[in-house]
Amino acid sequence: MRKSEYFVLGIDFGTDSVRNLVVDAFDGEELASDVFYFPRWAEGRYCNASGNQFRQHPLDYIEGLESTVRNAVGKSGVDIRKIRGIGIDTTGSTPVAVDRSGVPLSLKETFQDDPNAMFILWKDHTAVKEAEEINQKARSWGGVDFTKYEGGVYSSEWFWAKIMHIIRADENIYRHAYSWVEHCDWMPALLTGNTDPVTLKRSRCAAGHKAMWHEDWQGLPDAGFLEILDPKLKGIKDRLYQETFTSDIPAGRLSAEWAGRLGLHEDIRVTVGTFDAHSGALGGEVEEYTLSKVMGTSTCDMLVAPMEKFGDRLVSGICGQVDGSIIPGMMGLEAGQSAFGDIYAWFKNLLMWPLEHGVSKPDAAPVEAVKEEIDKYLIERLSNAASKIPISESGVVALDWMNGRRTPFANQALEGVISGINLGSDAPRIFKALVEATCFGSKKIIDRFREEGIEINNVMALGGVAKKSPFVMQVMANVLNMPIKVARSEQAPALGSAMLGATAAGLYPTVEKAQRAMGSGFDKEYFPEPENAAFYQQLYEKYKRLGELIEKESDDEKGF
Amino acid sequence: MRKSEYFVLGIDFGTDSVRNLVVDAFDGEELASDVFYFPRWAEGRYCNASGNQFRQHPLDYIEGLESTVRNAVGKSGVDIRKIRGIGIDTTGSTPVAVDRSGVPLSLKETFQDDPNAMFILWKDHTAVKEAEEINQKARSWGGVDFTKYEGGVYSSEWFWAKIMHIIRADENIYRHAYSWVEHCDWMPALLTGNTDPVTLKRSRCAAGHKAMWHEDWQGLPDAGFLEILDPKLKGIKDRLYQETFTSDIPAGRLSAEWAGRLGLHEDIRVTVGTFDAHSGALGGEVEEYTLSKVMGTSTCDMLVAPMEKFGDRLVSGICGQVDGSIIPGMMGLEAGQSAFGDIYAWFKNLLMWPLEHGVSKPDAAPVEAVKEEIDKYLIERLSNAASKIPISESGVVALDWMNGRRTPFANQALEGVISGINLGSDAPRIFKALVEATCFGSKKIIDRFREEGIEINNVMALGGVAKKSPFVMQVMANVLNMPIKVARSEQAPALGSAMLGATAAGLYPTVEKAQRAMGSGFDKEYFPEPENAAFYQQLYEKYKRLGELIEKESDDEKGF
Repeated sequence: MRKSEYFVLGIDFGTDSVRNLVVDAFDGEELASDVFYFPRWAEGRYCNASGNQFRQHPLDYIEGLESTVRNAVGKSGVDIRKIRGIGIDTTGSTPVAVDRSGVPLSLKETFQDDPNAMFILWKDHTAVKEAEEINQKARSWGGVDFTKYEGGVYSSEWFWAKIMHIIRADENIYRHAYSWVEHCDWMPALLTGNTDPVTLKRSRCAAGHKAMWHEDWQGLPDAGFLEILDPKLKGIKDRLYQETFTSDIPAGRLSAEWAGRLGLHEDIRVTVGTFDAHSGALGGEVEEYTLSKVMGTSTCDMLVAPMEKFGDRLVSGICGQVDGSIIPGMMGLEAGQSAFGDIYAWFKNLLMWPLEHGVSKPDAAPVEAVKEEIDKYLIERLSNAASKIPISESGVVALDWMNGRRTPFANQALEGVISGINLGSDAPRIFKALVEATCFGSKKIIDRFREEGIEINNVMALGGVAKKSPFVMQVMANVLNMPIKVARSEQAPALGSAMLGATAAGLYPTVEKAQRAMGSGFDKEYFPEPENAAFYQQLYEKYKRLGELIEKESDDEKGF
Repeated sequence: MRKSEYFVLGIDFGTDSVRNLVVDAFDGEELASDVFYFPRWAEGRYCNASGNQFRQHPLDYIEGLESTVRNAVGKSGVDIRKIRGIGIDTTGSTPVAVDRSGVPLSLKETFQDDPNAMFILWKDHTAVKEAEEINQKARSWGGVDFTKYEGGVYSSEWFWAKIMHIIRADENIYRHAYSWVEHCDWMPALLTGNTDPVTLKRSRCAAGHKAMWHEDWQGLPDAGFLEILDPKLKGIKDRLYQETFTSDIPAGRLSAEWAGRLGLHEDIRVTVGTFDAHSGALGGEVEEYTLSKVMGTSTCDMLVAPMEKFGDRLVSGICGQVDGSIIPGMMGLEAGQSAFGDIYAWFKNLLMWPLEHGVSKPDAAPVEAVKEEIDKYLIERLSNAASKIPISESGVVALDWMNGRRTPFANQALEGVISGINLGSDAPRIFKALVEATCFGSKKIIDRFREEGIEINNVMALGGVAKKSPFVMQVMANVLNMPIKVARSEQAPALGSAMLGATAAGLYPTVEKAQRAMGSGFDKEYFPEPENAAFYQQLYEKYKRLGELIEKESDDEKGF
C-alpha cells in the first residue's frame, strides 16, 4: 500500500454526537472529520434524568450518519473510489426492541414517541431491580453462573437487565418486540442491508461483555435460565443469535441504497460493530498490560492480555473478559466508572441553575452572554481555582457514585456523596473533591486488577477529559502514583474504528498491523508528584472507608 | 403608665448588623428602627471562612451603636427626655481580650488589625481542639464536672475554649490580655462608663450558658481546674468575676459621655446585657414549655420552665440550663443549631461562584445586574422549585453539620454531608435536602428535651427565616409534626431587649409584666400536613442513621 492509495472511514457514535473521520489507510493520517450532535437527544425528549432514564431515537443516528459521512468525505476531498472500509463503534450496552425485520419499533409510527421503543442508552439505570434479580438467580438457579465472565456481577446498564425491565414495564413493547439489537450491531446491519435479527452479524465485544455470551456454553445463556429470569423471555434465544464476530470481520458490503444515501461507492466493507471504548483503546495505542483509560462522560478502562499468558483465570468485579473484544486473539478486559466527566457536568449544571431558573429573563441578551461564557469556561476556571488550594487542605471527601458504580463490583443502586462540608467549602473545594473522587474511583479499578494478579505496567489515557483537563490528569497521576501518557489523536475511537475498517477491507492482515501503521502515538505525559502522591494515598483510605460505610447501608436497604 | 409617657430603646447586635428599636413602653408599639451593617465585617477583613475563623472589630459595634441610636430616635420623633431605658442584646459567646481598663486590645494601635485581638464571634470554630480538651479534662480531673449545667458538653463556640485557643496561638495577645469580656457585657459597660473587667456587671445569661458559671460552685470554675486546662489560665479567675446579674437589673446609668455621643439624656438605665436569642425568646412571647426557636443564620431553641416544676434535674446534650437567663426566676434552657440559614447561604454562595469568579468581567454592568437579581431572589426561587418536587422523591439526604453540631451533644468537629446524589440531583433537589436536614436537626433537639422528660407543648418561631421562608417553615411543621406560630415582631430580640430596658428602668415590676404589656403576639401559624409529616418521620430515620455513621467515623478520628 502507498500513501493516499486507500482511505477508510471511522464512524464513532458517542453519547451526545456521532463523528466521522476520514483516514489515510497507509499511515492513519486524519484528513477530515465531521461531528453531528443528536438533536432529539439534546432536547432531552425521551429522558428523565432524575429517574435515570436515558433513551435515544434512531433518527438521531440515521441523520447523523448521513450528515457526517457526506460532510467529512466532502471536506477531505478524497476520491470516493479509494474508500475501502468503514469501521463503526457505538456506546453500549445500548439495545433497542426491533420487529421481525430488524426495524427498531421507534421507527414505526405507533411507537415513534415511546421512550421504551428507543435505544436504551448505556447510562440508563431504570433496570436496577432487574440486574439484582439476574445476579441473584445466576447464583441460585442451580446451573452455571452465566455472569462469571462478566466480572461476576451483572449491571443494570446491560442488555438482559434492560430487556427484562422494558418487557415488564411495557406490555405493548413486549408484544411487538420480536428481538433486540445493540446499537453497534444495528448500524452495520443497516448499512449492509441485512437487519434480520437472527442472521445479522453480532459483535463479539457487545455479546461477550454485556449479554453473557460465551463459547463455554455455545452462545447466550441457557434458555431455561432465561425463562427463570422472566417467563416473558421464553423463546427469545431463538430470535437472537448464537454466533458472534470480532470487528476485524466485515459485516458485509455497503448496500446500494446506503451507498447512494451516503454518496459513496458500493465496493466498501463495513466492519462488525464494536463499542467506542474498545475501538478507542485500539486507536489510543493499547498494548499488553497497559491500562487504556477512555475518559469522557464515563470511563472505560481497557486491558489486553495474550491468551496464553492470561490463561483460564476469572477476574471478578470487572465488566467482563472477552476473547477478541478489543484485539482479535487477545483477551480483552473491560472495567470502568459509570460517571466521570458527567460528575463535573453535574456540578456545572448545579452551578448554572441560577442563570437558567433564578433570573426573570433567562433569555435576555446580557444573561445569554453571561451564560455562554460560563458554559464555556466554568470547568476550566474551577480547575484553576481548585489547583491553587493546598492539597493537604482536604476537608471535603466525595464518592463518585452519582451514576452508580460500574467497577469494581457493579452496583448501580449506589449514589454519590459529598462529605466533610463546612461553611467555607466553596465551589472550587467541592469541585476538587469531586475530581479527587473520580480519580480514587479509577484507583479502585487498578487495585481490583492487581488483586486478581493482573499486572498493569503503564497507563494511557484518551477521550475528552484526557485531552482537555490537565488539572484532572495531574490529580489522576498523583492518585494512581503512575505516569499517564495521553494519546495524540483527538478522536481515538473513530481512529480505532478506521483501523478495524482497514483490516476488514483486507488492507492489513491483522488488527495489530493496522494499529502499528495507523497509530498516531502520544503527545503528553503526566508524572506523579511524590509529595502529593503520598498525601493522596492517605486520602484514598478515607475515600474507601466512606465508601464501605455508605455501601453497607445501601446493601442493608436502609440506603441513602 | 400611659401611652407615650415613656419610651425605651432595644439594641440588638446580630451577626451582620446592629439594630435599634424605639418602643413605647406602655404597649410595646414599635415607633422606629434603624439598622447598621458592620462595614469591616462585610469586607471579611478578619475572617477566614475555610478556616472557620470569624472575628469582629469593636469599631463596627461602636459606629453602629451611634448611628442606629441617633437615626432611630430621630425617625421616631420622640421627646428624648421620655426615654427611660436601654436594653442590649448581642450574639454570644463572643468574647474579646481587654486590657486592665477593659479596653479591647483591637482598639489599641498595635493590635488594630490583629484578628486575635478582635471579638471572637459565636460561630468562630478555631477552638475545636481546646473544646475537646475541656470536655476530656472536665470528666477526668477528679473534681466536679463543670460542664454539667451546660448540657455536659463544652463547645468550641464558647468562652473558655476561645480564650484557651487565642492565648496558645498568640503569645502577644496572651501577654497583653488582662481579662476577657463578652460582647453583651462590654456594650453596657461602655455605655455606663464602667469597663473595669472585675467590677463591670456581667450577664448571668452569658456566664451561665457559656462560661461554666454556677451558684453551686460560687462562680466560675475552680482555679485549679482552669490551671489544669492550661497553665496560662493561672490567676485569670481573679481578673474576671464572681457575681452575675439577670438582665432586668440595670448595669448602670448612661454616662454623660455616651449621652452626648448618642444624643440622649443621662437619666436612662442601661440593662445588664443578654444574648440575642434570649431576648428574642422574650420578645417573641416565650412562655412555659413553649419551645421558642430563633431561626436565623443559626438557631437558638429556648425554653423556660418554672423552677419548682423543673426541680434539680440536669439536662445533658443541650447548651445549658441557667436560672434566670431568659426570665428572672425561671429556669432558662438553651439549645440550638450551629448553622441554619447559614447553610442556605452557603448553598447560595456556591451557586453564585460562577458569577463572581467564572466570568472575565464580574464587575461589568450586565453581570452586576444579573448578580443583583440572583442575590435577591435565589433562595425564594429555589424554595419555589423545591416545593414542587414530590416529597416522596427524596433521594438526597443531607446532614446539617456544616458548622459543626451545637445540639444535641455539641461536637464542632462534625461536618456537613450530602448523600444520595445522582446525576439528576439538581439545585432545587439539593436545596430541598438541605432544608429537610436543617429541620431534622431541629427535631433532634426536641427529641433531646423529651428524652430528658421535659415536655414541649408548643413551638413558636422568630427570626429572619421564620418570617421570610414559608417553604422552610412548612417543612419544619411537617418534620416536627407540630403547629408552629410565628411571632409578629420583625425584630423580636430588639423588642425583648426593650422589655428588659423597661423593667430595668422600673417601669414594670417584673419581666413577665413587661412582656405581657409590650408583646406583639403572632401573625402566622404553620400546620403539619399529615401525609407529609408521616413521610418525614421515615426520612428522619435515614437522617439519624446517616448521622450515626458519620459521627462514629469522626469519633474514631478517621473522620471525613
